[in-house]
Amino acid sequence: MKSKILEFLKTNEGYISGQELSDILGVSRTSIWKVINQLKAEGYGIESVSNKGYRLIDSPDILSKAEIQYDLKTTVLGKEIIVYNQVDSTNKQAKKLAIDGEKHGTVILAEEQLEGKGRRGRLWKSPPNKGIWLSIILRPDLHPSKASMLTLIAGLAVVHTINRYTKNQAFIKWPNDIIINEKKVSGTLTEMSSELDVINYVVVGIGVNVNTTDFDDEIKEIATSLANEEGKSFERALLVKGILESFEKFYDQFMVDKDLSHLINEYEDNCINVDKTVRVILDGQEKIGKAIGITKMGELRFVQASGEEMILNSGEVSVRGLNGYV
Amino acid sequence: MKSKILEFLKTNEGYISGQELSDILGVSRTSIWKVINQLKAEGYGIESVSNKGYRLIDSPDILSKAEIQYDLKTTVLGKEIIVYNQVDSTNKQAKKLAIDGEKHGTVILAEEQLEGKGRRGRLWKSPPNKGIWLSIILRPDLHPSKASMLTLIAGLAVVHTINRYTKNQAFIKWPNDIIINEKKVSGTLTEMSSELDVINYVVVGIGVNVNTTDFDDEIKEIATSLANEEGKSFERALLVKGILESFEKFYDQFMVDKDLSHLINEYEDNCINVDKTVRVILDGQEKIGKAIGITKMGELRFVQASGEEMILNSGEVSVRGLNGYV
Repeated sequence: MKSKILEFLKTNEGYISGQELSDILGVSRTSIWKVINQLKAEGYGIESVSNKGYRLIDSPDILSKAEIQYDLKTTVLGKEIIVYNQVDSTNKQAKKLAIDGEKHGTVILAEEQLEGKGRRGRLWKSPPNKGIWLSIILRPDLHPSKASMLTLIAGLAVVHTINRYTKNQAFIKWPNDIIINEKKVSGTLTEMSSELDVINYVVVGIGVNVNTTDFDDEIKEIATSLANEEGKSFERALLVKGILESFEKFYDQFMVDKDLSHLINEYEDNCINVDKTVRVILDGQEKIGKAIGITKMGELRFVQASGEEMILNSGEVSVRGLNGYV
Repeated sequence: MKSKILEFLKTNEGYISGQELSDILGVSRTSIWKVINQLKAEGYGIESVSNKGYRLIDSPDILSKAEIQYDLKTTVLGKEIIVYNQVDSTNKQAKKLAIDGEKHGTVILAEEQLEGKGRRGRLWKSPPNKGIWLSIILRPDLHPSKASMLTLIAGLAVVHTINRYTKNQAFIKWPNDIIINEKKVSGTLTEMSSELDVINYVVVGIGVNVNTTDFDDEIKEIATSLANEEGKSFERALLVKGILESFEKFYDQFMVDKDLSHLINEYEDNCINVDKTVRVILDGQEKIGKAIGITKMGELRFVQASGEEMILNSGEVSVRGLNGYV
């Protein structure tokens, strides 16, 4: 109901009275009044004038369930959303919830992560109220060996969403980092729990640096935020909705054949590595060659100096440009 | 310290005084007295006689940390043991503990599971005080694709331990069920949490029907217990120790080459399917042929009527004898 009331406030030009809301939603005026107070407590500026009603005068950049579900165009993803103010990590929470049976499509968000993690335990700085720290619980009918493709789906979803709102073009660095002006704005950590040949659940964790403006010295050469690159701040709930909508769309396409065959072109068009000379670190050995695209399994097609093509699995390599991070 | 005091009580013929224990262990007599009371509360029959000391007169069949760690000959496995009286499932607890960082080798046990599970969510009846419901947390340096072999290690560990104490011979039904007289006494559920190419942790859940005497009608034709087949009850802590010791031994051998090459003979000698005609259900299709052994990756080698050899992955098939369960 909170989401509904927020919708009326957002779409209504003038005042809307408690009685009108009560009539439309079929709940008591007391319930309406309670929800209005909850919204105020969450930071919404709502003016109340006697005999006129309520009017939204300020919508803060907060990640609430109501805000994200308002006008969210998905059928499954985000039907359940759990927002924490502060957590160790959204993936950790998502995994525990999944063990207790939380269902496919549930989304976990936090305003702040104290122990945000990237791949292989690397720290992911997640300061309060500045970014999107989000985990999606999935229970795909899929062989565990195919779960790695979901990380490319996440990359596609994020790059699409960012490019709807930015002037600078964002790209995917295979398999799933998102790059603007050669710096990383987003990363994905996909984790899976499985029996030997059956997936219990997959947690896709997505981090996006949105409005962060200060980065530690040791990462400022390789990490950035949308705000830093675009010179303005972004409404995070809009981006979250975009990511969930795009993720669901690509996920549905993926599940048709349980591979990326319908998404290869889409992915390659957005991948910064394709047709570029790249450096690959494979088992500690460095190789230089050209990335020429991806396979339908999400592997990178890489042509060595010798002309021989190699297929690189997700996670086995670091791909770096000859100059710097990308 | 509890484990130490238990050791003294178990190995001492007559009485041992609180003062002696206090001197040997270098703790106060009050501490000794507290531990003695804890042991009594757990069900140990301990006689206390003034001016003589303590004497163990009855050792109950309980699964306590002290009881299992007493004389446990492992170097890593079971150095930490957590025993629950009642849990949903030991695997579920183990997974949550592993998410919170619980270390390699920790063992979770419960006297009763309310939601014990076999593979693919099948129910595993786990009545109180009658069986071994045990989960081992492992953090092997292993590619996720190799984790399935740990389930065969579990099978080997259990069959070895059982055969030390029974007259009837126990066998492994590939990949890991343990069979006595064509009925199942033990099963394993191996679950894994991983990033795309890195194992976070593996939980090996082992269930053994030890002293259960009544089975539901719908499973009594296929399930049994050690007590049912041997006509006597067993001390569960002894079996747990055996399983942990054997598991560690086979695990160490496995980790040398990260495959089963050193264990194929051992496994095949204990596998009931080898050199038998078996029925395999593969993608809903039934095939009849002969199992001839396993590969070093733990797959079943299966020769069809046509003479063609197939390699069956763990989990892809049901293997059933032509008559009944095995």
